[in-house]
Amino acid sequence: MTESGSVRYIGIVGPGQDVSPALLAQAHQVGRLVAARGAVVLTGGLGGVMEAASRGAFEAGGTTVGLLPGSDRSAANLYLTVALPTGLGEMRNALLVRSCDAVIAVGCSWGTLSEIALAVRTGVPVVTIECWDLPEDGPVRVADAVAAVKAVLGGE
Amino acid sequence: MTESGSVRYIGIVGPGQDVSPALLAQAHQVGRLVAARGAVVLTGGLGGVMEAASRGAFEAGGTTVGLLPGSDRSAANLYLTVALPTGLGEMRNALLVRSCDAVIAVGCSWGTLSEIALAVRTGVPVVTIECWDLPEDGPVRVADAVAAVKAVLGGE
Amino acid sequence: MTESGSVRYIGIVGPGQDVSPALLAQAHQVGRLVAARGAVVLTGGLGGVMEAASRGAFEAGGTTVGLLPGSDRSAANLYLTVALPTGLGEMRNALLVRSCDAVIAVGCSWGTLSEIALAVRTGVPVVTIECWDLPEDGPVRVADAVAAVKAVLGGE
Amino acid sequence: MTESGSVRYIGIVGPGQDVSPALLAQAHQVGRLVAARGAVVLTGGLGGVMEAASRGAFEAGGTTVGLLPGSDRSAANLYLTVALPTGLGEMRNALLVRSCDAVIAVGCSWGTLSEIALAVRTGVPVVTIECWDLPEDGPVRVADAVAAVKAVLGGE
Repeated sequence: MTESGSVRYIGIVGPGQDVSPALLAQAHQVGRLVAARGAVVLTGGLGGVMEAASRGAFEAGGTTVGLLPGSDRSAANLYLTVALPTGLGEMRNALLVRSCDAVIAVGCSWGTLSEIALAVRTGVPVVTIECWDLPEDGPVRVADAVAAVKAVLGGE
Repeated sequence: MTESGSVRYIGIVGPGQDVSPALLAQAHQVGRLVAARGAVVLTGGLGGVMEAASRGAFEAGGTTVGLLPGSDRSAANLYLTVALPTGLGEMRNALLVRSCDAVIAVGCSWGTLSEIALAVRTGVPVVTIECWDLPEDGPVRVADAVAAVKAVLGGE
Repeated sequence: MTESGSVRYIGIVGPGQDVSPALLAQAHQVGRLVAARGAVVLTGGLGGVMEAASRGAFEAGGTTVGLLPGSDRSAANLYLTVALPTGLGEMRNALLVRSCDAVIAVGCSWGTLSEIALAVRTGVPVVTIECWDLPEDGPVRVADAVAAVKAVLGGE
Repeated sequence: MTESGSVRYIGIVGPGQDVSPALLAQAHQVGRLVAARGAVVLTGGLGGVMEAASRGAFEAGGTTVGLLPGSDRSAANLYLTVALPTGLGEMRNALLVRSCDAVIAVGCSWGTLSEIALAVRTGVPVVTIECWDLPEDGPVRVADAVAAVKAVLGGE
């Protein structure tokens, strides 16, 4: 029996394509570190940063959830404990942010920006690695995966 | 590495309260049997049938997902691998049906009926144990947990 | 300037196809009568009962809203003041029920049943004309359009 | 009888509070000009830019729709032809963008930014008046209400 209340859920968001190897490595490390802390990883379930983060967590024995935009579960990457085809399109970005205790953005794109903005708007803590310039009252910029995980899950 | 495409997701739906011990036992057995077949169990994440089914699957070592109607994860029962506060209210019934490969209803209520109707409407296979009288072209009635699981996951 | 709080919104739901001329006539009259009372008519925006009800209200000078399941506004019938492509599929049934002050079902189908069930579940008053047999604590059966409109908007 | 396909739907988005009188005047003018062109105005249905834009369109005899985040219709501003309480919270931002043929942002906030980002992501044309600095491949910056309406509805 688990105590659901004590498990943390961390959204890891970022571009699904055209991601540099360096950013993919960051995403992989974020996933691994979040899983190592016992938190569940939520992503959009597709490729790029989503896949790298899921893989990092999955390989570390963590639980990974993918909230897919489409209605076809087979679009999911291969590193998900649970793959949910929401059929919501980009509305699933809002569902993802709502389901998380905190969000880590790795890289940026317009879809990623929508998630960052929704997180700030709704009071979900959000940190960014290599994202676009945004106003000061928005997400907290961090240097890398280690700093990101420390920022959302506390020091260790 | 798993092959997401090959895992089956079975929604188990039913009343959250005022459920007889006999129905709770059926729900528990449905959860256990679905998990024993390697399928993921999805429920609405709360009490009654949802909790009994999740517990059955969880105790059998299965993966359980709860799609909560509210925004507070702590409303979840204690037998969930993943608890997602959707904040969608009863719209989450439609999200649950959409995310499943098949639905098993244990008992009935108006919320449960909405899920059965949406499943029939959208072509998701659905079987019922002790539900209300419904038209012939609707859900398939089955006698018990064993028959329900056989109907949606095939004989064994 | 209107007082939004005082306008009533009535959902008119029913099958989109294979509807008898008699039921279409009932739907048309429901739309007309609801509009005559100054209430806004909400439907799923497509054909059959949805179109007949929208047409009845539209011809009476009323305001009609269609919440379309798909992403293409051109799927809307021609009698809508406002046509919104929600892209939610059958989840839009839940959005429609939530947006109404009361629901009138004309005829029945599995999609219609999902709306009736959601309305009962969430406490939205719902009356039915020629629907399937449902438990006593559910929707109120009425004989025709006049009785339906009187039931949800009060006598006159 | 209208031809639904030929009516245009323009979303007007912007902060709900702490908006300068100059920006409110721009929003009012955007609403007025959009209505004058025969297009429907969609907003989030609350105060600030949403109210000013709705008022501008409403006073010009246009049709205005408010997609409210909450479940209470009485939260709507007073200048709406149709007020829909979606109960979706900030997910309604995504519904609004999806329902529009184009989006005009007046001013900026994190909620507004989520709508701009979703519009860019999903290919909905979007122009901004006095918004934050954003990458070049994003929304088109325009100087004022006249330029905004010309950009989305064509010259006249």
